[in-house]
Amino acid sequence: MSQKFVEQLKEILGPNGWLEGEDTESYLTDMFGKQGETPLVARPDTTEQVSEVVKICAANNVAIIPQGGNTNVCRMAIPPENKSAVILSMARMNKIIDIDPECSTITAEAGCFVQSLQDYAREHNRLFSPDWGARGSAMIGGAVATNGGGQNVFRYGTTREQVLGMEVVLPDGQIWDGMRALRKDNSGYDLKQLFIGSEGTLGIITKLVFKLHPNQGQHCSLFGILTGMSELMNYLELAQKVGGDKLTAFELLPGLGVEKALNRYPALQRPLDQKSDWYVLVRFSDWENVEELVTTLFEQGFEAGILANAVMSQNLEQENNLWEIRDQMIPTQYFKSRLLKWDVSVPISKITHFLDSAENLVREHQQAAIIYVTGHVGDGNIHYTVIPEGEGDPGFDELCNRIYQDVDELVWSLGGSIAAEHGVGQLLKSRVRNQKSDVEYSMMQQLRHIFDPQGIMNPGKLIDS
Amino acid sequence: MSQKFVEQLKEILGPNGWLEGEDTESYLTDMFGKQGETPLVARPDTTEQVSEVVKICAANNVAIIPQGGNTNVCRMAIPPENKSAVILSMARMNKIIDIDPECSTITAEAGCFVQSLQDYAREHNRLFSPDWGARGSAMIGGAVATNGGGQNVFRYGTTREQVLGMEVVLPDGQIWDGMRALRKDNSGYDLKQLFIGSEGTLGIITKLVFKLHPNQGQHCSLFGILTGMSELMNYLELAQKVGGDKLTAFELLPGLGVEKALNRYPALQRPLDQKSDWYVLVRFSDWENVEELVTTLFEQGFEAGILANAVMSQNLEQENNLWEIRDQMIPTQYFKSRLLKWDVSVPISKITHFLDSAENLVREHQQAAIIYVTGHVGDGNIHYTVIPEGEGDPGFDELCNRIYQDVDELVWSLGGSIAAEHGVGQLLKSRVRNQKSDVEYSMMQQLRHIFDPQGIMNPGKLIDS
Repeated sequence: MSQKFVEQLKEILGPNGWLEGEDTESYLTDMFGKQGETPLVARPDTTEQVSEVVKICAANNVAIIPQGGNTNVCRMAIPPENKSAVILSMARMNKIIDIDPECSTITAEAGCFVQSLQDYAREHNRLFSPDWGARGSAMIGGAVATNGGGQNVFRYGTTREQVLGMEVVLPDGQIWDGMRALRKDNSGYDLKQLFIGSEGTLGIITKLVFKLHPNQGQHCSLFGILTGMSELMNYLELAQKVGGDKLTAFELLPGLGVEKALNRYPALQRPLDQKSDWYVLVRFSDWENVEELVTTLFEQGFEAGILANAVMSQNLEQENNLWEIRDQMIPTQYFKSRLLKWDVSVPISKITHFLDSAENLVREHQQAAIIYVTGHVGDGNIHYTVIPEGEGDPGFDELCNRIYQDVDELVWSLGGSIAAEHGVGQLLKSRVRNQKSDVEYSMMQQLRHIFDPQGIMNPGKLIDS
Repeated sequence: MSQKFVEQLKEILGPNGWLEGEDTESYLTDMFGKQGETPLVARPDTTEQVSEVVKICAANNVAIIPQGGNTNVCRMAIPPENKSAVILSMARMNKIIDIDPECSTITAEAGCFVQSLQDYAREHNRLFSPDWGARGSAMIGGAVATNGGGQNVFRYGTTREQVLGMEVVLPDGQIWDGMRALRKDNSGYDLKQLFIGSEGTLGIITKLVFKLHPNQGQHCSLFGILTGMSELMNYLELAQKVGGDKLTAFELLPGLGVEKALNRYPALQRPLDQKSDWYVLVRFSDWENVEELVTTLFEQGFEAGILANAVMSQNLEQENNLWEIRDQMIPTQYFKSRLLKWDVSVPISKITHFLDSAENLVREHQQAAIIYVTGHVGDGNIHYTVIPEGEGDPGFDELCNRIYQDVDELVWSLGGSIAAEHGVGQLLKSRVRNQKSDVEYSMMQQLRHIFDPQGIMNPGKLIDS
């Protein structure tokens, strides 16, 4: 990459629109550490600047890494190892453009934080439904490019289902204006669907139109212990029957994680004195009070022999406490040795089968391995973690690979996916290849090639060129 | 097309799997009449047969017209004028393969009628939400290829949002197995989204997996007259506030249509003695009784000065009567002269603006033209019909074209679409070209070309090659 090239970028972006040298370190660093190099981090603040930067990079055959909050867990938004690329950060394009409460739509630039849209929608008595732990640093462009999930999917759908329109800068620098706010539009191929979940490989999302939902300001949750894991599906069905559309979340929490969270964060309150290997966390939401529904679920759970113990939130503080505990379930903070991690999706009725079979497989390899599981049960999405013993011992890596292979194949045998909500990025690329038929993989490669024949857009991610 | 070619097809399909000569007439005929020719109507009953037929046609460069129920209104599923093509009817692939009430999914072949899935789901206490008048003859493959809408979109989303997985025969005959039943899957580009709404131009859908919803067996509707059209959005907002997620539909009916329906169908009962230019029809649904909610909407409507008159259904017979009236609003049955028809989508808050402005535009062209409007108000989808006077007079065609142009441009100026739910097919292809930017149109053409470089799949429909 020539100095002239870098100067051209600087000229387009203006003095506040780029970073060099040491200032680029944090952009090259994700949760796994630093990787790759960059001659310049571009920080455009208009779509036109994004377009011009892309054109210059295309003309010079320089790779571009679109970057939002860089909160993904798959090494999606940093350059490939030992490669250099321009990092294009959307951080300065962070304006909320419009909210139309009558239409229930919000329009914003791709660099807005997920939480910013949540807050703004709430001020207008609406709900922006995408929600997960990194809400304060994840940007909406990245949320859409990864089709972020989270705990509200059960009721409201994935991020994909919130998108009504978008503006995208294509890999040749052309700007596609797909900014619409229509609930129905059958006027051609639904192009936005390709960019959703594309992980930056087909273009750079610069603006978005999302649908909003009525604000469901009243929440009430139940934190419970089941009489047995075999009751999991029964309790989900009961929760759906009792709560109907007011059921917002149905989560599975590991006892191990709850103990670690309570230990690490003294502000968190223990919800139940009785300890258990598993807890369920069920939430109902509405604009009116939902305590009665939760009480019904509570009572009927005991009557049916499904609940062994449970507590309901009685006030906002307790409600927040329960969900703060949920937010602190991520295992990376609790275990320092190597974690084998899956973000599994299976048909909902196969969840308990998966959990049983996966445990058997893991124990065949290593009896003492720790198994740590959280789940968005209502979506069939299980975050499955195995912490094997003996890191550093001979054969440890092979052991890990065998466990990965066995559990992957179990997932596929159940019609599932090993990339449910977190995406593929760099880390899952090879394994996901085995999830796809040759026909499907070829279709994806052809699509990628049609949009990006030069292969400059986020190389090394999602699929092989 | 050689005799050998036809013989090859017959051999693949078997004696019950094809039609020739006179027997093909109905397949060449849609609501507008007969068009084009066909050497053979293929009626495969397995995906493998579909694949083999496509391969033979591709090898001989013969066009294929995928056909479901042929209930579309855009000349989507017959050959282009004066052209010959093999019609590939999905009618024999009509098996429901599986229903999983625990997962709330249903799997079926593409030739099943929409109503068959509705009935089967209901037997299992679930709801298959796509629903419109042609439910008894529309097939689900076509419903997905057109992304059918209907009155349940407001609550449940379009057909697109029901699809979890599909199997498709591609234009080169390869079979893509995308049959999944997962709520979350971020393992690559969401390929099924391209085929949804593709109107048979990218491949032939052979099987589908849909999501189901809890059965909402209890319905109650309100049929009312507003104090003024300016109250339309206010009443929608009130209905949402009162009913929340139980609001299933919010429809606008023309007084003219209601009178004609009551006149033509003696079995229909007049809901209200007071006549009006407009009526609203609002439905709440749940598994529990919703009469109380409708009563609240009824009372609050009068209190707020929004309702001038209204009636609620008191029993199943009255409920069915109201929706039968709604089903009979289609104007083609009532007007025998030329109809100018729009299937408009605008942002919901722009509906009344559109209605006012469109009327002004039409009246500038012809004061006495009849304007006939029905609407899925909650989705921003208006079926707008103009019946000008003087068909056959000199200048009539030019008058019609000018009205089309003006109303199209009005729609686009409001950020709308002229193909909201009925699709594009042959009839709207040219007009929709003007709705799209060059960038967007080019992207669609490139996609079409990548999938179907020979241009054999449903030529002349949706977009130009």
